[in-house]
Amino acid sequence: MIYLDNAATTLQKPAQVKEAMVEAFENCANSGRGGYGSSLKAAEHVYRARERIATLFGVEDCQQIIFTYNATYALNMAIKGVATRGSCIISGYEHNSVVRPLAQLRKNGISCYVARGRLFDREDMIKKFTSQLKRNTKLAVMTHVSNVFGYILPIREIDEICYKKGIKLIVDASQSAGSVPLKMSELRACVCICAPGHKGLYGPQGTGILVCKNGEELKTIIEGGTGSMSSEMSQPDFMPDRLESGTQNIPGIAGLSEGVNYVNNVGVEKIGKHEKKLISYLAKELCKCKSVKVYAATDENLQGGVLSFGSDMLSADEIANKLSEFDIAVRSGLHCSPVAHETVGTQGGTVRVSVSNFTTENDILFFLEKIKKILSEK
Amino acid sequence: MIYLDNAATTLQKPAQVKEAMVEAFENCANSGRGGYGSSLKAAEHVYRARERIATLFGVEDCQQIIFTYNATYALNMAIKGVATRGSCIISGYEHNSVVRPLAQLRKNGISCYVARGRLFDREDMIKKFTSQLKRNTKLAVMTHVSNVFGYILPIREIDEICYKKGIKLIVDASQSAGSVPLKMSELRACVCICAPGHKGLYGPQGTGILVCKNGEELKTIIEGGTGSMSSEMSQPDFMPDRLESGTQNIPGIAGLSEGVNYVNNVGVEKIGKHEKKLISYLAKELCKCKSVKVYAATDENLQGGVLSFGSDMLSADEIANKLSEFDIAVRSGLHCSPVAHETVGTQGGTVRVSVSNFTTENDILFFLEKIKKILSEK
Repeated sequence: MIYLDNAATTLQKPAQVKEAMVEAFENCANSGRGGYGSSLKAAEHVYRARERIATLFGVEDCQQIIFTYNATYALNMAIKGVATRGSCIISGYEHNSVVRPLAQLRKNGISCYVARGRLFDREDMIKKFTSQLKRNTKLAVMTHVSNVFGYILPIREIDEICYKKGIKLIVDASQSAGSVPLKMSELRACVCICAPGHKGLYGPQGTGILVCKNGEELKTIIEGGTGSMSSEMSQPDFMPDRLESGTQNIPGIAGLSEGVNYVNNVGVEKIGKHEKKLISYLAKELCKCKSVKVYAATDENLQGGVLSFGSDMLSADEIANKLSEFDIAVRSGLHCSPVAHETVGTQGGTVRVSVSNFTTENDILFFLEKIKKILSEK
Repeated sequence: MIYLDNAATTLQKPAQVKEAMVEAFENCANSGRGGYGSSLKAAEHVYRARERIATLFGVEDCQQIIFTYNATYALNMAIKGVATRGSCIISGYEHNSVVRPLAQLRKNGISCYVARGRLFDREDMIKKFTSQLKRNTKLAVMTHVSNVFGYILPIREIDEICYKKGIKLIVDASQSAGSVPLKMSELRACVCICAPGHKGLYGPQGTGILVCKNGEELKTIIEGGTGSMSSEMSQPDFMPDRLESGTQNIPGIAGLSEGVNYVNNVGVEKIGKHEKKLISYLAKELCKCKSVKVYAATDENLQGGVLSFGSDMLSADEIANKLSEFDIAVRSGLHCSPVAHETVGTQGGTVRVSVSNFTTENDILFFLEKIKKILSEK
């Protein structure tokens, strides 16, 4: 199979990920719950994973790294933990894991404004963002890279604007973690970075990450089962216990730890460069096809490892189905981000191609050969 | 190692669990997110797991089976999903994964009353429960088996009382799932059963289960990333999508599926009988030790695979540490359930021994030999 749906989950992982998962599954009991060997071994896995993730995201105190079920859980915990009053601003490229929790918060009187900057136009995003700020804006939530278009949003600039206005920023790094550099230490307004463990960080599914600055200040949405402060009726007020409830996914975290170690060793910049090169070539070739509308940045620095396209002749679903007959995996539809499709005006969805560090030039060549065949037969 | 901390997590699992986990890790993409082979394979794993769990808990519609990160998450989703008004009643044996979410709900005006029935006295529990009911009691949350004492609570009788009073019941099956029969179809007031995947169901850590009756009626605490109804701002109103957000733990669920299959094949009753026999023997022998206070039921039908004890001569922590030197793993302390210790009056915690279907008589004999040695040396 030619797997080009890495924005959903990466399928090929570094060999150590599986090894660590299996080792932890066989030998680890419950972390932080007992004083015997197999419990301590579990705690070691968790601690090492926190350290490696702290290195990746430029976080000094690794106790501010929280493990979650997936990025959607991390985003819910961040958004509902931070947004207690005022209004909120998001970009026009957010996933519904951002939009839906914020829609819920409307019941608490927290309204939400959308800054719809033009695709691949960072200046316009900054302009729209600034113009949508309200007197009571307390929180901004922004994706680092659009999961539909691969658009790399101007996070640093937005962070700076937020800092000056006293607005807290949550960054959704679902599509950027592992391929576009992002350091908490270089951001001033950012209080949370949310990321999946199973995409660009090459961990197993069932892992997500919430990177905090002062996570102990977050309101909780899940309580109990911390193993610490057992006698207290309320959640501990220290990290990571405040935000980590119940038994952790030790095999998953052990695997993720190796995935992050791989990313740290290869280097985020290098992975990003590889992905950009593939996407840039793909975009250029796709643009040659008549009837194809390609959503590609002219400046390749504005686009990560994701590309969307559509055709006048076949629907996105039809194209994905035909590719599937050639054993090529892509995604069609709205990709859980109707807002992004609305912002860009794609008219009912796109075909999304997304790569990883394991995607090869040959994969792209094979894809191009088949897509040209599919479109020419129409 | 002699592992007697199965109430925290089971360490020995059926061989198929690891095999399924590895197979899913290697071959499965994101479930329900794409139309290609490796995505469909993931969906198959999830569906089969739902079916097996539905069989275990006597649920007709397997779409009412939800996968969560762990039992704490399932309990939070159930409690906060059901408790919208009135007051709540719990037993005096609840875990802090029940007590803490309810403490949070006090802020919404939902008060909580505790029915402290005497240990291993089902009649007293029913009496105390009835006497603590208020005119506005809308929800009862009760553990099926105490995670500290192994006490099997009178769930069927409580369910019947709740049904007659129009009270919804949530059952915490964390310590009973897989070893004490519990069927949703035989309960009338029960709307949710919460369970971990990694204890008596022998799945990997990172898995929990929420079994619902009309789960589509629950308020959500996590939204987004359902893959379905992408264009909607609110969470789908159908199951399982309403309560399952973001990428699922496919390797974990595939493993859990095999664990549950093992339990279904061996039979819950048979597993329970094995565990009861070990605990009953252990209790009898421990009672012979001077200075030891054993919390054991006189009627073995009242106790599952968990036993707590203490000693006048050594603290619970000291005993656990000394056992650890003999490579025996047990748990000491409050076991995340200060309420249960308060109810029974253990004075600062106990040593907890907990078994699984893989625990042997020899494990218990070895444990007894060492504990006697430890206590006699004092």
